[in-house]
Amino acid sequence: MGTTEKTQATFMSPETFLAHWQGHRGLTRRLIEVFPDDKLFTYSIGGMRPFSALVLEMIGMGGEGVKGLATGEWIPYAESEKKFKATTKKELLDLWDSVTEQINSYWPQITPERFQETDKAFGQWEGKVYWLIMYFFDNEIHHRGQGYVYLRGLGIEPPPFWDRHA
Amino acid sequence: MGTTEKTQATFMSPETFLAHWQGHRGLTRRLIEVFPDDKLFTYSIGGMRPFSALVLEMIGMGGEGVKGLATGEWIPYAESEKKFKATTKKELLDLWDSVTEQINSYWPQITPERFQETDKAFGQWEGKVYWLIMYFFDNEIHHRGQGYVYLRGLGIEPPPFWDRHA
Repeated sequence: MGTTEKTQATFMSPETFLAHWQGHRGLTRRLIEVFPDDKLFTYSIGGMRPFSALVLEMIGMGGEGVKGLATGEWIPYAESEKKFKATTKKELLDLWDSVTEQINSYWPQITPERFQETDKAFGQWEGKVYWLIMYFFDNEIHHRGQGYVYLRGLGIEPPPFWDRHA
Repeated sequence: MGTTEKTQATFMSPETFLAHWQGHRGLTRRLIEVFPDDKLFTYSIGGMRPFSALVLEMIGMGGEGVKGLATGEWIPYAESEKKFKATTKKELLDLWDSVTEQINSYWPQITPERFQETDKAFGQWEGKVYWLIMYFFDNEIHHRGQGYVYLRGLGIEPPPFWDRHA
């Protein structure tokens, strides 16, 4: 181990995590693509939100979240929610792609020390920076898993979970 | 940064990731608990597997997976699948709890260097150790999200996604 003995061990480096997340985001994008245009905005099970609303949540959290963690500048979550609107699949995919770029461009500004520091995301959720990012990431997998059930409910074969590339 | 300058930066340390995963596993356990005993083994949407089958997949991957990555001893996945059976909620929860212990007990045997090494999980899926662990973790969130839809379909309020403790 040499010089690393006194330092914190690494499960994932920041670069590794970013690549892993963008791989997942690529899969989420493919899920949006296979949804029928109308069902994306209307289909629901058990009173839940349609998949488009779940995707808009991922868009607001991911894009504004990483920007906030990189710059320390936060807008309230309610304002972030109003910022992103889509009424067609194309609008949703365009927003998705702009967030992909936004995450990639702000990510290098988050210093390695910063991941263990505490921040208040959107001025309201306090936690360590890595934890807040994991929340955005975990929340995407959670809601995308729900999108898989919607697609199965619609009789549509979803893209395989293991097939990930950015 | 001092001595850390020459080493790999850390998004999450192995201990941080373990705590994060066990927090998620605590939430998954609460989801199993709120399922009606019969629906856990019978309810399905769109031809998907019942939640008990998804949970048995998490149990096989998590428990045998971490043991394999720690020891280098693998059983084929098909054998792992046969190893874990449950026909009641109590049996499922008991298996869940034994895997919680198994993960905690084998985890410290995975050395920090090992997370960036390559292994072949269950003798069939090749990848870096961190990536294989993330697969077990991501797959749990993915299928648990599907369990949320099952519960909503059954008219049952699931435990909140953000409420996590081991």
